[in-house]
Amino acid sequence: MNINENFLKLKAGYLFPEIGRRVTAWTEANPDKTDRLIRCGIGDVTEPLPQAVRDAMHAAIDEQGVAETFHGYGPEQGYGFLRDAIVENQFEGLNISADEVFVSDGSKCDTGNILDIFGKGNKIAITDPVYPVYVDTNVMAGNTGEADENGAYEGLVYLPCTAENNFVPAIPEEKVDLVYLCYPNNPTGTTATREQLESWVAYAKNHGAIILYDAAYEAFVRDSSVPRSIFEIEGAHECAIEFRSFSKNGGFTGVRCAYTVIPKTLTVKASTGEEVSLHSLWNRRQSTKFNGASYPVQRGAAAVFSPEGKEQVSALIEHYMGNAALLRKACQDLGLKVFGGENAPYVWVQCPEGVGSWDMFDKMLEEAQVVITPGAGFGAAGEGYFRISSFNTRENVEEVCKRIAAIS
Amino acid sequence: MNINENFLKLKAGYLFPEIGRRVTAWTEANPDKTDRLIRCGIGDVTEPLPQAVRDAMHAAIDEQGVAETFHGYGPEQGYGFLRDAIVENQFEGLNISADEVFVSDGSKCDTGNILDIFGKGNKIAITDPVYPVYVDTNVMAGNTGEADENGAYEGLVYLPCTAENNFVPAIPEEKVDLVYLCYPNNPTGTTATREQLESWVAYAKNHGAIILYDAAYEAFVRDSSVPRSIFEIEGAHECAIEFRSFSKNGGFTGVRCAYTVIPKTLTVKASTGEEVSLHSLWNRRQSTKFNGASYPVQRGAAAVFSPEGKEQVSALIEHYMGNAALLRKACQDLGLKVFGGENAPYVWVQCPEGVGSWDMFDKMLEEAQVVITPGAGFGAAGEGYFRISSFNTRENVEEVCKRIAAIS
Repeated sequence: MNINENFLKLKAGYLFPEIGRRVTAWTEANPDKTDRLIRCGIGDVTEPLPQAVRDAMHAAIDEQGVAETFHGYGPEQGYGFLRDAIVENQFEGLNISADEVFVSDGSKCDTGNILDIFGKGNKIAITDPVYPVYVDTNVMAGNTGEADENGAYEGLVYLPCTAENNFVPAIPEEKVDLVYLCYPNNPTGTTATREQLESWVAYAKNHGAIILYDAAYEAFVRDSSVPRSIFEIEGAHECAIEFRSFSKNGGFTGVRCAYTVIPKTLTVKASTGEEVSLHSLWNRRQSTKFNGASYPVQRGAAAVFSPEGKEQVSALIEHYMGNAALLRKACQDLGLKVFGGENAPYVWVQCPEGVGSWDMFDKMLEEAQVVITPGAGFGAAGEGYFRISSFNTRENVEEVCKRIAAIS
Repeated sequence: MNINENFLKLKAGYLFPEIGRRVTAWTEANPDKTDRLIRCGIGDVTEPLPQAVRDAMHAAIDEQGVAETFHGYGPEQGYGFLRDAIVENQFEGLNISADEVFVSDGSKCDTGNILDIFGKGNKIAITDPVYPVYVDTNVMAGNTGEADENGAYEGLVYLPCTAENNFVPAIPEEKVDLVYLCYPNNPTGTTATREQLESWVAYAKNHGAIILYDAAYEAFVRDSSVPRSIFEIEGAHECAIEFRSFSKNGGFTGVRCAYTVIPKTLTVKASTGEEVSLHSLWNRRQSTKFNGASYPVQRGAAAVFSPEGKEQVSALIEHYMGNAALLRKACQDLGLKVFGGENAPYVWVQCPEGVGSWDMFDKMLEEAQVVITPGAGFGAAGEGYFRISSFNTRENVEEVCKRIAAIS
């Protein structure tokens, strides 16, 4: 009996457990200040689920109470009403059809499970800093060797993203097979230009590589020149898969709904020479290992695109982006160099010269009682930066800004 | 760039697509009789979601509308309120603790994804006939060779279940590493005795094998001597994982909620000699590739265990089991040998001497306009049987019985 020993290579969740440990130690040492603590760490929404979504979910639950309108097993790929609404509202003019959209219960699942359809021996590129799920799922799938003392895994190609390259990595000189790109980016809050994405698509097409494009924060793009989808780029339909979510626009982190777009024109040559459609492989994966997203949840997701839903989501985005603007300004006023937070809910801040990101974490905790996320937790190239999330109440954010201003 | 070529070994969904093809051909040839068609094929519930579940889901959605009670990301393992309710109501006295319960969005996902934590080179045993997901996920994971002309995959150990062994397989003579058991069984509707499960646990402990025990139909057990959980068997906590679902008791096929139980005492020796806990591997798998089940859905699931919920679920079970009794009798009256349907919602019927299961399918379609599932679709040992599902309205079932009685 063999276990999957790749799991044993995983570092024991270095980032959020370590944050938890430090916060606990601080609260135990400072019981009198504990209720001053404000968390700006995890990227979870805080505002209520939009009324339009709740109305749709209530109606769907009522439908479940009547035999004539009861919905049992739904299509594994999602209901037509939602796939149609997604295409109409998110991919108009981008040559994506409803049957290229696979509805799921979350982007974390999709970005992890997508590796099921890829084989062994692929060269994987990830940006650094990065959303840890891309790395950990590749470790689990056996696509890496062991981690070194900095937590970098042998066999992965790390693409550093720093202020020097505006947080969009240079095209690698070597050939890679799979590359993860996330824009607007988590954790840096930065975006990629059309030209940069064009170079990536050209690279992928030249090398037969696939781009796994995570656009979970697309709704926060306000600058009309910033691409919202990889499918705005010509040729992407032959080399890219896009992940989208309702978590951060509709506030679905607790309700769970997301989707993955795989164009039918995306094929890979098998060892037999046969061109195999990744759409058909993913369809088979989802049909076999997934039973569709919850019906009331899918009704709720579709309501995000109703006229009321759009207005309510737009107000949520305004709220969080207002927070981001305040946080940006507070850090800038302190003389810090600030990135992101203009088309994304994350503000990425350079620590003062010579201060490490965990030192900055401790300083913010001790002096301001604000919990941030140290950049080093997202990868070696995140050292010297920290992330502040704008997912919070306005009141908390205003208080955080005041405290930042008072930092020594 | 390599795809997972194991997917190419998969047979293109031989069962339900072939049923669909035959039904379509028949309806096209018999447009006048089309509205007589009654489907007793797929195992999907038909009755409304219990009131207690709907009430709890409505309340949870209202909570999502207020910042103070809003729930964002929940624990990947499920909320404490649900894990506690599961243990209290389903595992009392069985030495299972709440943190050994992992809540998910479905048993299809869990029984498929569980292979993530196992390594390569394991010998896999499945019963025949069988729920196709066990087979297909092993094919996708590379645990088999190619399929032969009957759809049997090289490398799998098939354990035939027929009338001769009361549909509980003999203990294999060879050593296997993973064995899938499902009781009450899909598709045969039969159960295993305590003694039979004891032999399986003894076998697993002797050989260091793991039993993957699918108890999705546990709620239909009425005979108090029939085990409802593998954890009723001494020693199972060191060799078994159990899958449970709200699909068939609470009618959650469209709402989506299930859970997997992995005792912390279940360990496997790694190649280093280290004893590795499967609980910790699954916890890591779920934390990395899953973001928790929907909050309103988990509230709904917990309501299954409220006093009202229990009463309503019990009425649903009564309804479906009443259907099963009628279907059993109708087939017996026809002189057919009938199995299952007493502690399970499926009735498994032996075809008349010399009649194949697809012939029986055609006969039932043509003479009675009733869609059944041919046993051969679940594996070679299902040849000569067919499955009738009791998931239907009483009216439909009574009509089906009348038509069966009129069959020539």
